[in-house]
Amino acid sequence: MATPVPLLKDELDIVIPTIRNLDFLEQWRPYLSPYHLIIVQDGDPTKVIKVPEGYDYELYNRNDINRILGPKASCISFKDSACRCFGFMMSKKKYIFTIDDDCWVAKDPQGKDINAMEQHITNLLTPSTPLFFNTLYDPYRKGADFVRGYPFSMREGVPTAISHGLWLNVPDYDAPTQLVKPAERNTRFVDMVMTIPKGTLFPMCGMNLAFERTLIGPAMYFGLMGDGQPIGRYDDMWAGWCCKVICDHLGYGVKTGLPYIHHSKASNPFVNLKKEYKGIFWQEEIIPFFQQVQLSKESVTVEQCYIELSKLVREGLNGVDPYFTKLADAMVTWIEAWTEINSKRPN
Amino acid sequence: MATPVPLLKDELDIVIPTIRNLDFLEQWRPYLSPYHLIIVQDGDPTKVIKVPEGYDYELYNRNDINRILGPKASCISFKDSACRCFGFMMSKKKYIFTIDDDCWVAKDPQGKDINAMEQHITNLLTPSTPLFFNTLYDPYRKGADFVRGYPFSMREGVPTAISHGLWLNVPDYDAPTQLVKPAERNTRFVDMVMTIPKGTLFPMCGMNLAFERTLIGPAMYFGLMGDGQPIGRYDDMWAGWCCKVICDHLGYGVKTGLPYIHHSKASNPFVNLKKEYKGIFWQEEIIPFFQQVQLSKESVTVEQCYIELSKLVREGLNGVDPYFTKLADAMVTWIEAWTEINSKRPN
Repeated sequence: MATPVPLLKDELDIVIPTIRNLDFLEQWRPYLSPYHLIIVQDGDPTKVIKVPEGYDYELYNRNDINRILGPKASCISFKDSACRCFGFMMSKKKYIFTIDDDCWVAKDPQGKDINAMEQHITNLLTPSTPLFFNTLYDPYRKGADFVRGYPFSMREGVPTAISHGLWLNVPDYDAPTQLVKPAERNTRFVDMVMTIPKGTLFPMCGMNLAFERTLIGPAMYFGLMGDGQPIGRYDDMWAGWCCKVICDHLGYGVKTGLPYIHHSKASNPFVNLKKEYKGIFWQEEIIPFFQQVQLSKESVTVEQCYIELSKLVREGLNGVDPYFTKLADAMVTWIEAWTEINSKRPN
Repeated sequence: MATPVPLLKDELDIVIPTIRNLDFLEQWRPYLSPYHLIIVQDGDPTKVIKVPEGYDYELYNRNDINRILGPKASCISFKDSACRCFGFMMSKKKYIFTIDDDCWVAKDPQGKDINAMEQHITNLLTPSTPLFFNTLYDPYRKGADFVRGYPFSMREGVPTAISHGLWLNVPDYDAPTQLVKPAERNTRFVDMVMTIPKGTLFPMCGMNLAFERTLIGPAMYFGLMGDGQPIGRYDDMWAGWCCKVICDHLGYGVKTGLPYIHHSKASNPFVNLKKEYKGIFWQEEIIPFFQQVQLSKESVTVEQCYIELSKLVREGLNGVDPYFTKLADAMVTWIEAWTEINSKRPN
C-alpha cells in the first residue's frame, strides 16, 4: 500500500502574484483551500480582489509593501508578477507553492485531475540526485531505483530545495517562438521527475513552482521587472539562475518534471517581445556568466551566497548594461529586507 | 505530415555480442533484417550460431579475433559480452546499433510495437543540447521547442554521438538491488528523449545502444572483462564514462530515453554479484576520477583523447588496483588495433 503524502497544511503557503479571474480559486478549491494564501497584488492598489469564502488569506498591495518595507520597498517590482517574491518574504512557513492565475488543474492521460500539490510535496520531501545521472530518472519513486553503475555512496541523495512543475496546453515560449508557432500546444504528458544535474543551469518558470523556503528562500528573489525597469519576463529566470548556482554550492537539489498544470492562455507575443527583447540579448552574456560563477567556501548560508553573488553580478555584468548595477543593489536590499522581516519573528 | 525517418540501410550495422536464442532474430526481423549484422560470439568458438535465412551477416568467434588482430587480440574480452566492441572495430558503417539477445520488441502504452531503430536514428540525426537544460526535453521533437529563457545562440545544438535507449520489464539493476527487489519491473513508459548535460556522467547500458561510429567509435571500447579478469558487468559502464568525457571535450551530445526495448529476463544475481563486487568498490573512486578528468586542447580527435585518457587512467587509478594499469595498456592496444584495421580500408 502506498504511503499517503502528507498535506503539510501548517507548513506550506500558497503565493499568488495576482488574481484576475476568481474562477481560478474555485477550480483549485479542493487542492488550495487547505492552505493559507498570500496574494501579492501586482498592479493598481485601489482595485479590490475578492477572495471567495472558505479561503484563509492575506493580501498585500503596493501601499502595504511600501508601508512594511519603507525605503527597502524599492527592491520589489511594481506592475509585474515579479512582486510575488514579497509573499515569499512575508511567509512564515517552511514550504511555498507559487502559481499563476492563468493556470488550471490539468488532467493526466487517463482523464483524472492532477493533484499538483501532492506531487510537489512528494518532490520536496524526497531527496535529489544532482551528482550523477540516473537513467530511470527519480530513483525514489515507487517502481524505480538506482540503476547498475550508480555509486552507492551517492544513493542517499541531497535535500531537495526546488520542485519545478511543467505545463500542458500553452507552453512557456518566448515571444519570438510564440510569434513563429502561435498554434503549438504541449500535449505530451511525460510521466517523470528528475534532478537537474549539478553544474547545469535551466530556465526556471514561476508559473508552477514549489520550494523549501527555509532552505533556499533568500535566493528566490524575482529581481527588478515591470514598471520603470527596462525588462520584463525574466523575473523567474533570474531567480532560477541564482538559485541553481547557490543550490549547487550548498549541496541542495532542484527537480523538474511532474506535476503538470494546464496553462490556459498564451500572453500577447507583441507585448511580450517588448518586455523581453533586452533579455534576449542580455541572456547571451548572463548565462555564460552564471555558468562560470564560483562561490567561495566562506559563503555557507543562502544569505551569504546571495550577497557574494550580488558582488559578482556587479563586477561581471555591469559591462552588459547599467541595469545590472541597479539589480546588484536591489539584491543587497532584498537580503536586508528579508533578514529584517524574518528576524522579527520567533521562528 | 511528418517527414519519414530514413532507414540508413547502407550506413548502419547491427552488432550483437552473441545469440543464444534464435527467436530473437525472428522477433526483430521487421526491424533488423534490412541491416547488415555483425555477430561477435562471446564464448566457445566451436559452437555454431545458426542465423535464420534472410539476414545478411558476418560472424566472428575467438579464433577469428585472434587471427585478425594477432597479439593485439589481448584487448578484446573473452567469454563476456564486452567482446562486442570488436564488432564496432570491424564495421565499415557510419552508425552502429548494438543490442543484447535477451531484449525483445517493446510495446508502447497503446499496445503498438515500438520501432527502436526509427527512434535511435531520429535521436542520432537530430542535434543534442548539452550546454543548457531544456525543461520540455528534446526541443527538436515535433510539438516541442526551446522554452523561454533558452539562449538563442545555443539552439543549433551539437552533433549527437550516442543514443542510449531504455528497458521496460526487467530494469538494469546491479546485483545487490536485484537481490533486494527481485520482483521489481519497470512498467513506466516515459515518453521522452533528453540530452545528458555537459559535465554530467551517467551509467551507460549496452543493452540497447546506438552511436555514430565515425564520431565516437574509437572511444566505444568495452574494456577487459570476463575470462581471466577480476571484473565483469562494467564493460558498458567503462565505455560510458570514457565516451562521456570525450563527447564533452569534443562538443558532441549524448541522448537518453526513448526507445524502449523489452528486457525479458533478469540475469542471476548471485553470478552477477561475483562479477560485480570489485566494480562496486572501485566505482566509488573511478567516478570521482572521471568527474575531474580534463583533456588537453591538443587532443582534437577521439583517438588522441582516448590515448590521453589511457595515460590519466594509468596515473589516476593504478592506486585503486593493478588491474587499471593492465586496462590502460589495453586502451592503447585497442586504439592501435582500431587504427590498423580502419586505415586498411578506403573509407
